[in-house]
Amino acid sequence: MSEDLKDYLERTAEQVDLMLDRYFGDAFGELFKASAHLLLAGGKRLRPAVLLLSAESVRPGSSDDLMHAAVALEMTHTFTLIHDDIMDGDATRRGAPTVHVKWDEPTAILAGDVLYAKAFEFITHAIADDRARVKAVAMLARTCAEICEGQHQDMAFETAEREIEGFEYIEMAGKKTGALYAASAAIGGILAGGNAVQVDALYQYGMNAGIAFQIQDDLIDLLAPPEKSGKDRGSDLREGKQTLIAITAREKGLDLAQYRRSDLTPEELDRAIAELEEAGVVDAVREIAEEKVATARRALSVLPECTERQHLDDLVEFFISRSF
Amino acid sequence: MSEDLKDYLERTAEQVDLMLDRYFGDAFGELFKASAHLLLAGGKRLRPAVLLLSAESVRPGSSDDLMHAAVALEMTHTFTLIHDDIMDGDATRRGAPTVHVKWDEPTAILAGDVLYAKAFEFITHAIADDRARVKAVAMLARTCAEICEGQHQDMAFETAEREIEGFEYIEMAGKKTGALYAASAAIGGILAGGNAVQVDALYQYGMNAGIAFQIQDDLIDLLAPPEKSGKDRGSDLREGKQTLIAITAREKGLDLAQYRRSDLTPEELDRAIAELEEAGVVDAVREIAEEKVATARRALSVLPECTERQHLDDLVEFFISRSF
Repeated sequence: MSEDLKDYLERTAEQVDLMLDRYFGDAFGELFKASAHLLLAGGKRLRPAVLLLSAESVRPGSSDDLMHAAVALEMTHTFTLIHDDIMDGDATRRGAPTVHVKWDEPTAILAGDVLYAKAFEFITHAIADDRARVKAVAMLARTCAEICEGQHQDMAFETAEREIEGFEYIEMAGKKTGALYAASAAIGGILAGGNAVQVDALYQYGMNAGIAFQIQDDLIDLLAPPEKSGKDRGSDLREGKQTLIAITAREKGLDLAQYRRSDLTPEELDRAIAELEEAGVVDAVREIAEEKVATARRALSVLPECTERQHLDDLVEFFISRSF
Repeated sequence: MSEDLKDYLERTAEQVDLMLDRYFGDAFGELFKASAHLLLAGGKRLRPAVLLLSAESVRPGSSDDLMHAAVALEMTHTFTLIHDDIMDGDATRRGAPTVHVKWDEPTAILAGDVLYAKAFEFITHAIADDRARVKAVAMLARTCAEICEGQHQDMAFETAEREIEGFEYIEMAGKKTGALYAASAAIGGILAGGNAVQVDALYQYGMNAGIAFQIQDDLIDLLAPPEKSGKDRGSDLREGKQTLIAITAREKGLDLAQYRRSDLTPEELDRAIAELEEAGVVDAVREIAEEKVATARRALSVLPECTERQHLDDLVEFFISRSF
């Protein structure tokens, strides 16, 4: 990642944190505190950055008016995480106990529902043309429904009696992760007054970037040293999760069932990785992510050349080079 | 209720059912089916009726353009019921198994989340001025957050170690039930192009009507013969729920703790009712509901005199005369 983009992301994250702190910092009442808990626990704030960069690419100076909209996308992301953590039974996230663990399940359902509402309220606070704001709301609404479908598919994969195909995984990742990046980019374009070609290009950029992001997440889970990723290495393998890696391994005739054990040793994990690398599974999966990144970058070509377009280009490259 | 209003409500319910059936009737996939389940299980469709009558009172003919918005309010109501049923652990509603029982809890969380998204999508489909649509979205969003707060307060009452006061109950009912009726009426007014005075009056109408509705629900639970209400008579009393009846009884020095038993006989229940009636509890609670109805009716006076304003007037009267 370029130093310029790194600076930009840090500055944007600070602005997002500032607005969130102003709004949720002295949250009053247990429900509001539960809503704020994960939102204030940090995060890279990548979706707000994508929204602001997209707006700026379409119309320089427009992003100043769109901080509320940018924060709305972070709220949407956080609400889905709170509900997902209940469904997946996860106890920690970002180094803190999840909402349903720190409070309880009913409070966590409601805390997510409150953020869901706040996201739509914040979108309406964007300083933009009325018609554009209506379009932004409609796109956010359609996106939320898609994210739910993606999460439902992801859960269904785990109990499916049939073999999941690679294209199904990519469809799921598109809904679960791609759709919100697509909406972030497109809503930035819409609110900045972009034309249909620009908005569609930004949507395609975000969708492909998001899918690449999700694939990279799976690679990180397998390959990244835990001190770098902050995650429990190989958890997907141990749980037998239907990732693109597992699906590609099966297609190449590898049997990963032997590694589906909670007491897997680091040595066994290394052997699994070696096996996956030798069979070309890791390379094949990386190639798919790279292809998505190339598509995302190509989509940007309809936008005027500018620093922010260059940042969007750098950012999607970072999506598949990161190890955290 | 006048025959005219009865006809109107029936016709509106048919139109709502028709639109829901067109949209959700051949739902594809388990998640969409789970979202449609409770929505297609019937219901009085009172919130859509309030929205359409309010619009029509402000500008004759406007309601034709607002069916999507009317249905959005029904979706919002249904999403809150699906999530509430999970939190309250209820197994049946409208004579059918609840979503988390028929499917499972993760699916029910997502099914509610999908309807939540669809509600906002449908509001944007209203045929109305852009600025009005943005305002309608903002009001729906604020309302959803309020409903969550109301549900959270309601749950907190049950585990509170201190005594709940009457005004706290009314505040809770205002958020949990009043806010969505208030939003239904006000959004109808906003989308029909009403001025600020009209929209505020409609909001006050809906808020007071909704609180009266909730109080009547509690009276029905205690007093209505089950063959009429379709409910399990006296369930609030047996569970020791903090209703306005229980709070008022306590304030009048009555001890209801002896009736907090799941094996309460019909005779014991009759004795409890007699005790509550003799002590003036039932009358006192009714009086509060009637006062809310009077406030709701007074609010309507700023609207032009017309059939639809008369219907709104009749409707709130029905809210506290109904036994189902």
